[in-house]
Amino acid sequence: MASAEVGDDVYGEDPTVKRLEETAASLLGKQAALFTPSGTMANQIAVLTHTARGDEIILDSEAHIYFYEVGGPALLAGVQTRQVTGLLSENGPAALKQSLRLQDIHFPHTSLLCLENTFNRGGGTILSPEIMREMYSIARDRGLKVHVDGARIFNAAVGLGVDVKVFAEHCDSLMFCLSKGLAAPVGSLLVGTQEFIERARKYRKALGGGMRQAGILAAAGLVALDSIDRLAEDHANARRLAEGLSQLPGLRVALEKVQTNIVVIEVIGRQSAADVVRLLSERGVRCGASGPTTIRMVTHKDVCAEDIEYALQVAKEVVA
Amino acid sequence: MASAEVGDDVYGEDPTVKRLEETAASLLGKQAALFTPSGTMANQIAVLTHTARGDEIILDSEAHIYFYEVGGPALLAGVQTRQVTGLLSENGPAALKQSLRLQDIHFPHTSLLCLENTFNRGGGTILSPEIMREMYSIARDRGLKVHVDGARIFNAAVGLGVDVKVFAEHCDSLMFCLSKGLAAPVGSLLVGTQEFIERARKYRKALGGGMRQAGILAAAGLVALDSIDRLAEDHANARRLAEGLSQLPGLRVALEKVQTNIVVIEVIGRQSAADVVRLLSERGVRCGASGPTTIRMVTHKDVCAEDIEYALQVAKEVVA
Amino acid sequence: MASAEVGDDVYGEDPTVKRLEETAASLLGKQAALFTPSGTMANQIAVLTHTARGDEIILDSEAHIYFYEVGGPALLAGVQTRQVTGLLSENGPAALKQSLRLQDIHFPHTSLLCLENTFNRGGGTILSPEIMREMYSIARDRGLKVHVDGARIFNAAVGLGVDVKVFAEHCDSLMFCLSKGLAAPVGSLLVGTQEFIERARKYRKALGGGMRQAGILAAAGLVALDSIDRLAEDHANARRLAEGLSQLPGLRVALEKVQTNIVVIEVIGRQSAADVVRLLSERGVRCGASGPTTIRMVTHKDVCAEDIEYALQVAKEVVA
Amino acid sequence: MASAEVGDDVYGEDPTVKRLEETAASLLGKQAALFTPSGTMANQIAVLTHTARGDEIILDSEAHIYFYEVGGPALLAGVQTRQVTGLLSENGPAALKQSLRLQDIHFPHTSLLCLENTFNRGGGTILSPEIMREMYSIARDRGLKVHVDGARIFNAAVGLGVDVKVFAEHCDSLMFCLSKGLAAPVGSLLVGTQEFIERARKYRKALGGGMRQAGILAAAGLVALDSIDRLAEDHANARRLAEGLSQLPGLRVALEKVQTNIVVIEVIGRQSAADVVRLLSERGVRCGASGPTTIRMVTHKDVCAEDIEYALQVAKEVVA
Repeated sequence: MASAEVGDDVYGEDPTVKRLEETAASLLGKQAALFTPSGTMANQIAVLTHTARGDEIILDSEAHIYFYEVGGPALLAGVQTRQVTGLLSENGPAALKQSLRLQDIHFPHTSLLCLENTFNRGGGTILSPEIMREMYSIARDRGLKVHVDGARIFNAAVGLGVDVKVFAEHCDSLMFCLSKGLAAPVGSLLVGTQEFIERARKYRKALGGGMRQAGILAAAGLVALDSIDRLAEDHANARRLAEGLSQLPGLRVALEKVQTNIVVIEVIGRQSAADVVRLLSERGVRCGASGPTTIRMVTHKDVCAEDIEYALQVAKEVVA
Repeated sequence: MASAEVGDDVYGEDPTVKRLEETAASLLGKQAALFTPSGTMANQIAVLTHTARGDEIILDSEAHIYFYEVGGPALLAGVQTRQVTGLLSENGPAALKQSLRLQDIHFPHTSLLCLENTFNRGGGTILSPEIMREMYSIARDRGLKVHVDGARIFNAAVGLGVDVKVFAEHCDSLMFCLSKGLAAPVGSLLVGTQEFIERARKYRKALGGGMRQAGILAAAGLVALDSIDRLAEDHANARRLAEGLSQLPGLRVALEKVQTNIVVIEVIGRQSAADVVRLLSERGVRCGASGPTTIRMVTHKDVCAEDIEYALQVAKEVVA
Repeated sequence: MASAEVGDDVYGEDPTVKRLEETAASLLGKQAALFTPSGTMANQIAVLTHTARGDEIILDSEAHIYFYEVGGPALLAGVQTRQVTGLLSENGPAALKQSLRLQDIHFPHTSLLCLENTFNRGGGTILSPEIMREMYSIARDRGLKVHVDGARIFNAAVGLGVDVKVFAEHCDSLMFCLSKGLAAPVGSLLVGTQEFIERARKYRKALGGGMRQAGILAAAGLVALDSIDRLAEDHANARRLAEGLSQLPGLRVALEKVQTNIVVIEVIGRQSAADVVRLLSERGVRCGASGPTTIRMVTHKDVCAEDIEYALQVAKEVVA
Repeated sequence: MASAEVGDDVYGEDPTVKRLEETAASLLGKQAALFTPSGTMANQIAVLTHTARGDEIILDSEAHIYFYEVGGPALLAGVQTRQVTGLLSENGPAALKQSLRLQDIHFPHTSLLCLENTFNRGGGTILSPEIMREMYSIARDRGLKVHVDGARIFNAAVGLGVDVKVFAEHCDSLMFCLSKGLAAPVGSLLVGTQEFIERARKYRKALGGGMRQAGILAAAGLVALDSIDRLAEDHANARRLAEGLSQLPGLRVALEKVQTNIVVIEVIGRQSAADVVRLLSERGVRCGASGPTTIRMVTHKDVCAEDIEYALQVAKEVVA
């Protein structure tokens, strides 16, 4: 980062950002890419760019774009979210079909389908390329664009052992984060066609996401993109953690949902999730309560195999 | 209407409109009322007046405001709709509780709960005053306002044989239509506190709902408000229709849901709903398909008991 | 109105509304028309239909759309108004050219030019067809659409003694009011291409402007369209009024701006405009203060030549 | 930057960002501060936080917020900009008074006055603390909040030789940039009351401006805030440049407007501004055409006194 060559990225003059954008586009198999300060911004830019005000967009009832982005689709784009249960599952194609509206003067125009892979509130589960292909095909038949919130798309790729391009080919645009699993300090990328990215760039400016000498951040991003394979360790650690926790008396883990680096644990004893989180935290195991009786743990670059053993030991004592 | 005394209602100078607004407020037991060209506008004005941009509002996943109003909450108010299944049922209070969000920087602020009574897509079902009271109490505890889309609130009142005020007391604002069951040509009313209606009046102007000599419409509205009791006939007709249809071989009717003037019929034979609608229509029985296998029939002022017998006879032949 | 044949206009089934829309389109020389409850709504629908969110539109710094429509362009359409001084004058074409932006990532896209004819805050002045042609040509060269707020376009036509079509041919859409000079109780019409009106119809629904049995209003509108020639009397009355007032000691009238049915009077004595308005009003001459030292008088169907003489007499005494 | 201590700033856990925010608040004499990826975002957050949808805000007809921020006030906040000529001048208070609206159902509510200091399109001119005080007083009397786009507020302070607090005390919020004159790579700060900044933080999240480990950028910002005094050199260089250029035959410079680090040059000969910019650029003197006959030059940290002499020499040859 310290040696990054920089320029004014608002004018497209920062060579390091340009290199990061080209690398990202090529890695995903898309024409172009745009660097943004956050995944939320990249998602919202995608919604803005694919839709007109007053449209409806379809997403899962637990999708990040709907759930965690401060109401952005309505606030910024003026679009209504149609929240569909089970969209990010094997039943996604059927659920999608049912949520498509006919043409009627009472109905908003539906212009966009948003997928999410891996599915954060689903527990880091992977949406298979086959299901994505099927949904992309349904969407295109009805004139909808498809955007993928792929904040953790490399976890999906590593989890299935496939090239990330197999996901990116079943959508019009995709966002992924350099932070989170990839461990860069700041930044996300939005990929799509050249024309899409050009229009997206203007929305980025409008949202205040045009940064000046952003090359220093982009330099870290380039490093992050060289360390994708490392995610397999996070997955192995998550698996080990999940298996260990599932054997403790007061906890339950749906092991089939532990597909990447997220572990969702149900607290079934007398303790509340908040209690357990606090007790773990006091002994250095940081995690979060994602509901009154559920805990969410995430493995990442700074968590090694010994840390997992330590966490299991602490958990054992805490729930005892 | 021809003899209505009029003035410029934008300047609050139309005496007939004023009289209609006062009558409506008094009938519902609220401080003030606002005349609007449509129920959709009154609902959207309520959403605009109760919320700030970026907020989230809670409504049923089949609510008219979400389903049939062209995406207005996002387009006009910039608010996100949280679509809750079963909100307009006995389980409403529990469903409401589950949909309330904690305070978190990722979450929009929730400011409004929208109910609907009778529930159009539910088949004209009535939400009881007891359930409304319970939901209003939950909402107030959490700082939410409550708006009722009462396009057919008089059907609910007549259906239960209660004063319409028992519904209006469990909400902050309520909209009802002069058209539909009450049979006036144009117009709806929004009721609430004086302060609320004053702010609503400004939003009406912004939406272009300020009409000049609207007194001619208001005159018809005043007549409509004198004929509320007549709705009982519509309900009796609907009941007779539902019972008759439920005995025909290819049709099924959930009789317990026929509570007012709407009858929803499931076509269970080889025919599609669209087929049946077309065949009925060719013989003068007009209705609409509300899904691939469902038909919706509505009774109103211009449908009498003999019409029902005729419709039943035609239906019998059509489904034979 | 009492004998109007009606239907549900939301479903396009009201024959009187359809007849009014066809008459309006034909009168203006456009393909199609849309009936709305107000001129403000028709203007806002035009802005919504011609633009995308985030665009910039160009209008006069005193334009009704900017000045009197409660901030609608930003609130409803999310577009920025560029307020240009002198746009609705002989210098309009030059002023327009200067306000056009280059392409730049910092700039919004400019998509619409809004004219106003006659120009309300300009004192009812007429924008000539020649100037309109010139501006329409500049706009088209730059990809802008042109909408005309023609609330009083028939006053412009009668004032110049030309067919109203000579104005309508130099724009993409035009709104005119049935109320005001044409004296119908409620309603305005938006005209344009078939495709434009179809999209506009959806926005009307979203704003809550879709009315059910609107035919009773449309019937009055059809009568209004038969009485256009009568506007010449209003103009003669306004001229007589202006000349008379201009000879009174404490008043000044820019006679060259009295081109239609509006007279703007400057109060140059010790009295404030509000004082004079009040004194006139007490003796039955109703008008409004449009600024601290300016009064606006409007002639219309219910003001006859004798009324003018009476008003002059009263004014003489009031300013004495 | 390399040694910055970081954390997740979305959760308020980045100590370096917190330190930067505290330093900024204290430097400006305000309660709290918020770090943003750009000045545009900080300005738009201020507009969002101070207003409700549908409001009107008052700003100069050449203000950055209106001119260069992609229509953000309408797109993001749904507010109308009232563009006032001469607002950022000695006549500002009078111009402000004239632009204040009365209460009327046709008018939007005016909630915010935006100032800009130094005034970019004005040529880097300084708005004096006295004028600011006067405008703040008028604004408060009418219930308006005041936000200052102080992207270059330290240039104003250094230019007048006063503490920057004398500007900040005459407003409710102020934004300044760490980039531009202060030479940090990325970032701006918004300052105001604790309560204002808390609400602003939520809007930052909604716009996608919440960054994860932003401490590496904040570290550079802290360095920038230590080098404010250096701006005096930029001003001296700009003055020397302006005086030199003003003596060249084909150029004209309004020397009284050269108050900080911006020099606006009028090209009065046969050459266009674009021609001159190109010729200068070919010889290493980079600047921009800000109009068909105007050039804008900016001095900054990487321009020294010798560079100015070189630029003058090149300019002399280019316009010869």
